Amino acid sequence: MSRTRSEPFEVRRRRVMEAAAAALVEQGYHEVKLEGIARRAGLSKGALYLYFKDKEDIFAAVLSDVVDRIEDRLRAVPEKGAPLKALSEMASALLDCVDTHTDFLIQFSRETPNLCGEKAGKVLQERFTRVLAHIADRIQRCVRAGDLKRHDRSVGSLFFFSLLRMLVLQKIVRKTSAPLNKQTGAMMDLFLNGLGKR
Amino acid sequence: MSRTRSEPFEVRRRRVMEAAAAALVEQGYHEVKLEGIARRAGLSKGALYLYFKDKEDIFAAVLSDVVDRIEDRLRAVPEKGAPLKALSEMASALLDCVDTHTDFLIQFSRETPNLCGEKAGKVLQERFTRVLAHIADRIQRCVRAGDLKRHDRSVGSLFFFSLLRMLVLQKIVRKTSAPLNKQTGAMMDLFLNGLGKR
Repeated sequence: MSRTRSEPFEVRRRRVMEAAAAALVEQGYHEVKLEGIARRAGLSKGALYLYFKDKEDIFAAVLSDVVDRIEDRLRAVPEKGAPLKALSEMASALLDCVDTHTDFLIQFSRETPNLCGEKAGKVLQERFTRVLAHIADRIQRCVRAGDLKRHDRSVGSLFFFSLLRMLVLQKIVRKTSAPLNKQTGAMMDLFLNGLGKR
Repeated sequence: MSRTRSEPFEVRRRRVMEAAAAALVEQGYHEVKLEGIARRAGLSKGALYLYFKDKEDIFAAVLSDVVDRIEDRLRAVPEKGAPLKALSEMASALLDCVDTHTDFLIQFSRETPNLCGEKAGKVLQERFTRVLAHIADRIQRCVRAGDLKRHDRSVGSLFFFSLLRMLVLQKIVRKTSAPLNKQTGAMMDLFLNGLGKR
């Protein structure tokens, strides 16, 4: 444990978050105990309180951090250029994020009903709304460019998100490790053209 | 409570199931107690055991019953005639079922992660797979009739189901009581044509 003394605050804080994420995947939210997180992070339970107030606080931070990385990826997709190409790049970026954080995101979405009233539940709802709004903006750019039919703003982003969720569900059911972002083309084809025959 | 004496077994059993469904919506699965169900049904806790073995047994029966009614509606859609029209009627029937059982289905889907290992969880998985298989069969008839593009069998039914779920989500978010099955046309349009401009 001596290595913890020489580590900067942020590094140790991040180690706690990583330990919490790993514990969540293994045990589920309600089973995770602060002692377990501390042990995984190589700290005493008392030392945990230097970094976080309580378990809720840790998981709110863990979730915020994952969504930060997802939003960074989305923002990295250029605003300029063909709007439809940008939308497809957003789909690819989101599927890539799901690939990177698969176990954590599956476990977290399973836990959603258990997080009502918890700080992480509030973070989840706020951040999810923000990600959806970002997707809706990009979709509206496609509408303005004449690439998509005019439609109710909320329908487009929910439809887009439903297709993402469908691919994740399929990955779980098939128990395959094939990267989801290889299916970006198939996803965009359903989004743009549906299954009907021309 | 004297009325219970003159009622046939099936009527009383059904009254227990209705009481359990109402308790689930109000309290959530883990909070529901056998005493509460008995009280709502106008029976003693002891009398409950004439109809069901335990709480798991009651909720497995409640869920089976709801899915029976959904499957009856799906089977009632004629196999003959235009396959695409039949598929649209299935969408309408499913949305109608969601309208009828909204509170129960929302609560039950919230509880899904809590039902792992419970009898109702097993019933849920088996019946859901069967409903999806039924939808997949009807979709394949549309493919054979040349109405839909050839595609991976599991994609079609999951896509169809994702669109249903999206409408339900939208209804929850908007807190509207407008019947979902009025959106059958909009749903089928996304399924067949997506959002791309021709």
